[in-house]
Amino acid sequence: MSAPSSTTHAPGQIMAGEMAEQPAVLRRILDEGAAGIREVAERIAAKNPRFVLLTARGTSDNAALYAKYLLEILLGKPCGLTSMSTTTAYDAKPDLTDCLVITISQSGGSPDLVASTKAAREAGAITLAVTNNADSPLAEVSEFHIDVLAGPEKALPATKTYTAELLALYLFVEGLRGWGSPRTESGGGAEAAKALPEIAESVLARKDEVRELAARYRFAERMVLTSRGYGYPTAKEAALKLMETSYIPALSYSGADLLHGPLAMVDNISPVIAVVTDGKGGEALQPVLDRLRDRGADLVVIGAQDQVERASAGFALPTDGLAEELQPIVEIMPLQMLAYEVTIARGQDPDAPRSLAKVTETR
Amino acid sequence: MSAPSSTTHAPGQIMAGEMAEQPAVLRRILDEGAAGIREVAERIAAKNPRFVLLTARGTSDNAALYAKYLLEILLGKPCGLTSMSTTTAYDAKPDLTDCLVITISQSGGSPDLVASTKAAREAGAITLAVTNNADSPLAEVSEFHIDVLAGPEKALPATKTYTAELLALYLFVEGLRGWGSPRTESGGGAEAAKALPEIAESVLARKDEVRELAARYRFAERMVLTSRGYGYPTAKEAALKLMETSYIPALSYSGADLLHGPLAMVDNISPVIAVVTDGKGGEALQPVLDRLRDRGADLVVIGAQDQVERASAGFALPTDGLAEELQPIVEIMPLQMLAYEVTIARGQDPDAPRSLAKVTETR
Repeated sequence: MSAPSSTTHAPGQIMAGEMAEQPAVLRRILDEGAAGIREVAERIAAKNPRFVLLTARGTSDNAALYAKYLLEILLGKPCGLTSMSTTTAYDAKPDLTDCLVITISQSGGSPDLVASTKAAREAGAITLAVTNNADSPLAEVSEFHIDVLAGPEKALPATKTYTAELLALYLFVEGLRGWGSPRTESGGGAEAAKALPEIAESVLARKDEVRELAARYRFAERMVLTSRGYGYPTAKEAALKLMETSYIPALSYSGADLLHGPLAMVDNISPVIAVVTDGKGGEALQPVLDRLRDRGADLVVIGAQDQVERASAGFALPTDGLAEELQPIVEIMPLQMLAYEVTIARGQDPDAPRSLAKVTETR
Repeated sequence: MSAPSSTTHAPGQIMAGEMAEQPAVLRRILDEGAAGIREVAERIAAKNPRFVLLTARGTSDNAALYAKYLLEILLGKPCGLTSMSTTTAYDAKPDLTDCLVITISQSGGSPDLVASTKAAREAGAITLAVTNNADSPLAEVSEFHIDVLAGPEKALPATKTYTAELLALYLFVEGLRGWGSPRTESGGGAEAAKALPEIAESVLARKDEVRELAARYRFAERMVLTSRGYGYPTAKEAALKLMETSYIPALSYSGADLLHGPLAMVDNISPVIAVVTDGKGGEALQPVLDRLRDRGADLVVIGAQDQVERASAGFALPTDGLAEELQPIVEIMPLQMLAYEVTIARGQDPDAPRSLAKVTETR
């Protein structure tokens, strides 16, 4: 459960080590990365993009969704997530003048992301790569690059690179502030984020609480995650993490979409995890939480203490005074830990989530 | 199983009746709607929008994703799906000059959709509502409106309004062709679509085949749906349909995303349904299908005969000669029927997917 110290591998040792690195990674971005990120933001702001497209896959796609909320809410820029196959399979030739295309990828090595970024640049887009590898092909084909400085990631389930991507994207969007919208507080971004490493440390230390929550899901056959606003990318990323480690089918919905159909699936045998960001997103989620409580759903809340107290169980986040848009960077952590602990409780190895499949492949 | 003819309700009678209406609805759109849709398209094309934002929920959100592929591939327009809470919860004030905002809603009555469309119009957007109710508040607040002419929809799981939305959106995008991209074939849209009602009839008549497939999922605890390109909205809509009728947790992934993690969940006990559109989307899916076959996955294919033959089972679509972008309008039908038949096989009522929940609510 501690950081890896030798080459023998206890189950989950690599993932646990990388989760534990998160406070240090956040600190590194704030200390060593922030100035460079601001410079990139200023150079891009000078080009005055009108529309932003975000391209990514898997965990990085959830970071892209977080950036979409930041760009729409803080900057009022219309945004879209790319349907990559339109370029890679259908060879679409969009006119991307005035478009900023942000491609997010841990490795920066996925050939389809490199190809779609190259095509975007040829189509007139301003291209920015956000990766964990400054020497990657993706960084090379992009006009601009931000390094998330997370260090090598070895576990298959991405953890530290996700929170690193979020913070880098937050600092980038803060750096763009003023671009086409009234600058609310200059340079407040890095300042507001300074509390994150310590909050992250305090959350990651609460392993016993997460282990108690994990007992609830050890035999779960399925799970539903829900949120609204800034917490929605957290719900999606938590579902992905749970699935790729424990194989529990975990479905994520925005609270509004949950009421449009999938609610039929939620009853007293389908546990629900709600990510209740402290702010407007959490407020907008309240009617959904009321509906879930009315149905007698097993409701676990990740959020402020008073929200947790009204649920079946939960994990109280120490986010007092932390801006709503920064909370996703810590609220995913108890859920990463939950995915890890549920997987351990089920006798599987979070570091090797495909071992079951590997056995199947030999049949 | 036939169209409702009295007020007594056999389980699923309403949904079955509405599925059966689809060929007639498609014919009505082609005969009575196409000219009006083309006129709307021409008036919008004259305003020369540069970006398109699509707003919808639930089933209509899958229709929005279909439109996104059409707009990106056929017109090369950058597109995004709206994160509605940025407007309704966070009160974001984007600059939507040169943006076309398309809001899709069966009823046209959802207050948040009305509010976000109104806000978009005030922010400078060209607004288009696509609804099944020309007198709805959404149609009223939008500058332009397209009626999908599906007639009243009474079943909770939407079927005929989904395929009606797809065809209306297809005709709309065809009407926009030439706008900023070389016009390939003028007015070819309605012509190419003329085969749809008959193909739909032949698919909907094959109830016995679907019942056989349904037996495979009667006891399934979870399902995975996958596709690429134009078929991806079909996979998402099929997953929603299965969940809201049968409560089977059904997860949908683009083929590329499936390889980024969730594949760990797929083994010989997790059935996979692949939507293999006959064209570039289906081609791009082949490596994913190979991986699934290598793992010994139970793979059901909805697609061309030769694709079905290489899977564990499937439903062969008679789409010979039908343009790839039109296939989603028929490929969802066997999956609507599958959701219906699985639900009947499990002793539940597809017309009342919340009955279980209603019981739970009284606890």
